[in-house]
Order: sequence, then structure tokens, then C-alpha cells
Amino acid sequence: MAVADSPSHPHAGEPVFDLHLGGKMQIVSTAPLEGPEDLSLAYTPGVALVCEAIAADPSMTQHYTWVPNVVAIVSDGTAVLGLGDIGPAAAMPVMEGKAVLFKQFGGVDAVPICLDTTDVEEIIETVARLAPSFGGINLEDISAPRCFEIEDRLKAMLDIPVFHDDQHGTAVVVLAALTNALKLTGRDPGTTRVVISGAGAAGVAVARILLEAGITDLAVTDRKGVLNSLRADLTPVKRALAVDTADRYGRSGTLADALGGADVFIGLSGGTVPEEYVATMAPDSIVFGLANPTPEVHPDVARRHARVVATGRSDFPNQINNVLAFPGIFRGAFDVHATAITEGMKLAAAEALAELVGEELSEEMIIPSPFDPRVGPAVSSAVAEAARRDGVARR
Amino acid sequence: MAVADSPSHPHAGEPVFDLHLGGKMQIVSTAPLEGPEDLSLAYTPGVALVCEAIAADPSMTQHYTWVPNVVAIVSDGTAVLGLGDIGPAAAMPVMEGKAVLFKQFGGVDAVPICLDTTDVEEIIETVARLAPSFGGINLEDISAPRCFEIEDRLKAMLDIPVFHDDQHGTAVVVLAALTNALKLTGRDPGTTRVVISGAGAAGVAVARILLEAGITDLAVTDRKGVLNSLRADLTPVKRALAVDTADRYGRSGTLADALGGADVFIGLSGGTVPEEYVATMAPDSIVFGLANPTPEVHPDVARRHARVVATGRSDFPNQINNVLAFPGIFRGAFDVHATAITEGMKLAAAEALAELVGEELSEEMIIPSPFDPRVGPAVSSAVAEAARRDGVARR
Repeated sequence: MAVADSPSHPHAGEPVFDLHLGGKMQIVSTAPLEGPEDLSLAYTPGVALVCEAIAADPSMTQHYTWVPNVVAIVSDGTAVLGLGDIGPAAAMPVMEGKAVLFKQFGGVDAVPICLDTTDVEEIIETVARLAPSFGGINLEDISAPRCFEIEDRLKAMLDIPVFHDDQHGTAVVVLAALTNALKLTGRDPGTTRVVISGAGAAGVAVARILLEAGITDLAVTDRKGVLNSLRADLTPVKRALAVDTADRYGRSGTLADALGGADVFIGLSGGTVPEEYVATMAPDSIVFGLANPTPEVHPDVARRHARVVATGRSDFPNQINNVLAFPGIFRGAFDVHATAITEGMKLAAAEALAELVGEELSEEMIIPSPFDPRVGPAVSSAVAEAARRDGVARR
Repeated sequence: MAVADSPSHPHAGEPVFDLHLGGKMQIVSTAPLEGPEDLSLAYTPGVALVCEAIAADPSMTQHYTWVPNVVAIVSDGTAVLGLGDIGPAAAMPVMEGKAVLFKQFGGVDAVPICLDTTDVEEIIETVARLAPSFGGINLEDISAPRCFEIEDRLKAMLDIPVFHDDQHGTAVVVLAALTNALKLTGRDPGTTRVVISGAGAAGVAVARILLEAGITDLAVTDRKGVLNSLRADLTPVKRALAVDTADRYGRSGTLADALGGADVFIGLSGGTVPEEYVATMAPDSIVFGLANPTPEVHPDVARRHARVVATGRSDFPNQINNVLAFPGIFRGAFDVHATAITEGMKLAAAEALAELVGEELSEEMIIPSPFDPRVGPAVSSAVAEAARRDGVARR
């Protein structure tokens, strides 16, 4: 039977487009369908027995449907990669890519759902209505600050994991890498001074997980400088973060001010940080320039001043890549049929990732490679264990 | 990595449940992901080129995503098989089964979407918001009369095929079977008297397609008898149908009244029709008792009076099974990137199905087997051709 793609296409010969021809994924049946007998088991009349069993006891969904292994990757296309608000249709290749990574690295089935709305209420109600079809919701590339409210309210409404990967996937991998960088440079979280540039989805979530992990001296900056309560222009999310970060140590001023003497810089803004600012950081400093494809500080520049350097890029050492986290996190959550992804599960994921580096720890190796086959199993088992500890495991 | 199903389960040893363990489908990647090079094509940074191409020209979705080959199977679980309103969770095994049939018989990827709402407005707006993620919408097991409004309004809103299979899939296969039954018994549509019991989704759609195919003397009954304009209790859908059916020949009364002298009986009600009614039909009558698992007239009973007998069951000859239609209809629509499924496409599907029987036509063989490998290709090419003829093909 003909499939939907034609042999030639508008960008034929360009490797990225050749690879994308016809999309990157498909559905396959796991039930045999060779003849009428198979049909009468997988479909009518046999399937009615399974429907009746679930109608009588909804927990049977866990055994007899694909639902407990399927995550919906939900986006409205407003904050896609570095491209910004490109809409739901143009976001689809990223969501398919994510689905492929979910399967490859976590054995999780994932369905990309790009929504034709950017309204917070509409996104929330739409996802809530879809919930019976999925074992979990991965929110993706939804712009801040809408992403915070959408995630918070869906978490409160639903009894399945809801996880905004741009926030928490990034936060888990950054924490893992930073844990090892602190170890390597002989620092203690409680006395380490950290500056994060960027107070969007990733910046806020990274700040929050670092606070949970014991970092106390933390300043987060946006385009106007350090977030603190002296500023009158903060959104509620930024204001709450200011109270928990710069306010504690009375920090204020510009990014340049904040970087003077700082131990750690984490770039999550997409802006550029001049070399002279980096030069003012503490000795043995740690610089994560995570904007893609152009880091806030080019790694060659950063290395002139910093001891440990990480980026989001695969062509330099220490790639901070969310694929290290989200497949294993959902795999672990699904394995115990968790009702949520807790802070404890995220911290456990970060710890498991950091530990995998083990004795290989060096300036060039603070985080495992995404292709290290130990990553998925290590993260998923740590997450499953934490889910049990946190009381959100249903098996 | 562990998958979500456990080795033992509550109904272990029962064949239907053993087959359903872990569900009936999964997602697979069609893009290689062996190392960083692959990752940089299928995901960042390469994927950004594809996103930008689609942002610049949305029709590129057709080439570089899985969207044009994916149908959403959308249900609210209100009219599932003969089980009725069992809700979205319990409906899932049927939708997964349907997805498996879409793939097996049409090469169409299908995602089951069971909605946590039964409100007409909410279903419509939810499906409309999902539309960028799918090449088509297959509505399934949504109770009448809500299904009519949902389908009509979504068809008007969306530029992708929207198809309520319980209506139109059934209608296409019934028309195909009836076409051959009329041929076998030497009847002309214009002079054949038909009675349909059941004015739900299937009954209404079958009546409509028979009218389009040239049947003029048609009576449709519900529990209170023949639908005609003398009745004050009709919904708008039933009233409109009455005008186009029984009103024309002034038919009224009970199902028993209608069956006296009728050439064709089509049962789509789930009720039981006593043998003595069937005995009053015209010589060489045609009886389709399509309720499942209990036909309105048992085929052994029907055969005592009728020349041609069909059921919905696989254990008797002439099985009227929607799987003969929906996979090929969507395959054909997708192959030409159709914006809709027109009446012409449905009629073409029925004609293609009827023609496949060819010289094998007999009382025991008025419709092909679902496992006849010619079915999918014949239906899809007829549908694609009709789409071009009707001006809804985009390629």
C-alpha cells in the first residue's frame, strides 16, 4: 500500500530533510492479526471483556491498555528551541524528535500533541480532557510565564505525572553536572556563590532545584539585572524567586555586578556574557553557557578563566542535554505507576546521573554521555525508588 | 529496561486478557539514533531547519512530519460496542483495536484519544485544538444524536478529513453488500422497498447513503415505529430523515407493518425481530441483522425466509464489518492529502468493495472477507480517485 510520502521532496539531498521525509515515527501493532480468530480477540467480540473489566475496575487500564506506557508531549509552539513562537505545525518536528528520544532512551511511547491555542485556560482544559488516554504529560516549549501556571494547575488536577521538561529536565541535568563540578573543585553547596542568567522556564526551575540541593547564595538575573524585592517590575513567579535567592544575601545590580567573585555562572538566557565579566569570577570558577547553538560564553573563551566549562552543545565536552533525564524519569515513574513526579524524584535523578561519572570525574567529564547505556536504567531505578519513598508509587 | 507490564496479571490465562497485556500497540522510531551525529539531525540543532521550513510554508508539514499519515481515533466512550456508555478509560481497548486495524489494513498510523468529557461543545473545541497534530479525525463510539452535530461542525471547521466511522464506515459496507444482494436477486434500487430498524448513528447514515445510491422507497424505524412527519416526538435529525424516507411513500405504523412485502430488512437497532415478521417479506428477500453479538434475526432463522442473509458476525457468511472500509478510506484520503471525505468518496469505496466480489457473487458471498488482501488497495485507490474528482485532493 502506498505511504503518504513521495520519493522526491522540496529539500531532497539536504541530509536533515532527507532524514525527516515522512516523519520520524510510526505506530506498530503488538497484537497478531493474521485471521478472524486474532480479530475476534483484539477487536470484537473479545475486546468487550476487557472493556467491561476496566469499566468495573479502572485500575485494570494499567494492565490491559498501552496507556500506562504512553506520554503526551504537549506544546503550543510558543517557545521552540531558539526559534521562539513558531506555532504548533512548525513545532511538530521537535516533538517527534522528543518522542523518538523517549522511546530510544526510556522505552516510553510518546505521542506529540501540538495545540492550536496559546490560551492558558484552553491548554489546561484540553490537556485535562485528554488525560484518560495517557500515562503522563510532558509539557514542552511553552513560553514563560504561562508554562508555570499550566504545569501547576495540571499537576493539581491530574493523578498522572505532569512534567515541563524545559524546566525540570534542564534543572535535573544542571544539578547533576554542578554536583560533580563542585566535587571536582572542592566546593560545598552551602558556601558556593551561584549566578544564573535567565529567569524563564529553565532559569526558574534550575534556581529552585539548586535551592533544594543546598545552594543558598544564589542570584538570578533577567535583562534588567538581579531579581530582588527592590524591583517593582517583577512577575509573581520572579518576585517569589527573588525572596528565596538574592534577597537573602542582599544582592542587586547588573549581571556584571553579580558575577564579580561568583563561583558559578549558569547561562540560560541566550544573551552574551563578555569575557571581562567572566574574568572577575572566583578562582577555579565553573561556567555553564547553555544557550544553543550559541552559548552565553564560548567554551574556548570560558576556559581561559574557568576551571570547569559546560555547554548545551555536542561538539564540546560536558554537554548538558535533557535527554539524560526525561526518558529515565518517565520510565521510572511509569514503572511504579506514579501519580506525580515529585521534587524527591527529580533530586534522585540528578544524583543518579552525577554518580554515574564516578572515577572518570575530570574537568572534561562532569556528566555522562547521552549514549552511555547505563544512563536510562540508573535514572529510572533511582526515580522509581524515590517515588516509593515519596508515597506516589501505585505499585 | 523494564516495561510497564508485569509478568502476572489479574486475568492471567484468559486468552483475551493475555493478548491485551501491555496494550496492543507501541510507537517506533523510523529515524536512526546511533550516536551524536544522528541526534544532531533528528533533534537539535538540525531539526530547527525543518521547523523553520514549516514555519515559512505550512504545507511542508506534509513532507517532513508524521502528521499526514496519522489519524486521531476520538471517543468519549458513550456508545461503545453493545456496552453503551462505559466512559473513556473502558473504551480504550476498542480504540487501540481500531488503531491496530488502521495500521494492518490501511498502513495508517492511528492514535486513540479517549476524552474525559461528553459535552458536545467541549468535544468539538478539544478536537479542533488537537487538529494540527493529525492528518485526520476518526470519531468513534459517540452516542446519537450528539455524534451528528459533533461531526458536522468539525467538518465545517477543519481542513482535514473528519469521519464518524459508526455512521459512515457502516454505511459504506452495507451499501456494498446491498449492491451485490440486489444484483444477485435481480432488483433495481429504484423499485426496491427497504426497511431499516434503528435510527441511531448507523441507521441514519445507512439510510442517507442508500438514498444517495438510488433507493427511494425506504422506511426507517425507531422503538416507536416508522419515522414519518405525522409523529410529534422526532429529533431534528429524525424529522429530516422522515421527510426523505417514509413520507415519500406515505409509510407509517410499526416495524411489523413496514416489513410486510418489503424486499430488504437492515437491522441496526439491537432489538429482536420475530420470525413471523420476516415471513411476511417479499419473495427472495434480503435480511441484514447487524447487531452484535446478537443479530436482530438469527441467520439460521432468517435463511428460512430470505434469499440473502448477512450479519455482523465472523462465524456466519457475509460479515458486514467496518474494517472493510475505514482503513482504505483514510489511506486513500491521505494518499492525496484530501481536505475532507466526501459523499463521492464514500460511494466510490462502496462500489470498489462490491466489485471485488466479482464472479464469486452468491448467496454466501456478497461482500469480500476483511482478510482479502485486495480490499485495502481497491478501496484506497477508488477513494483517492473520487477525492480528485470531487476537488478535495491537495496532491
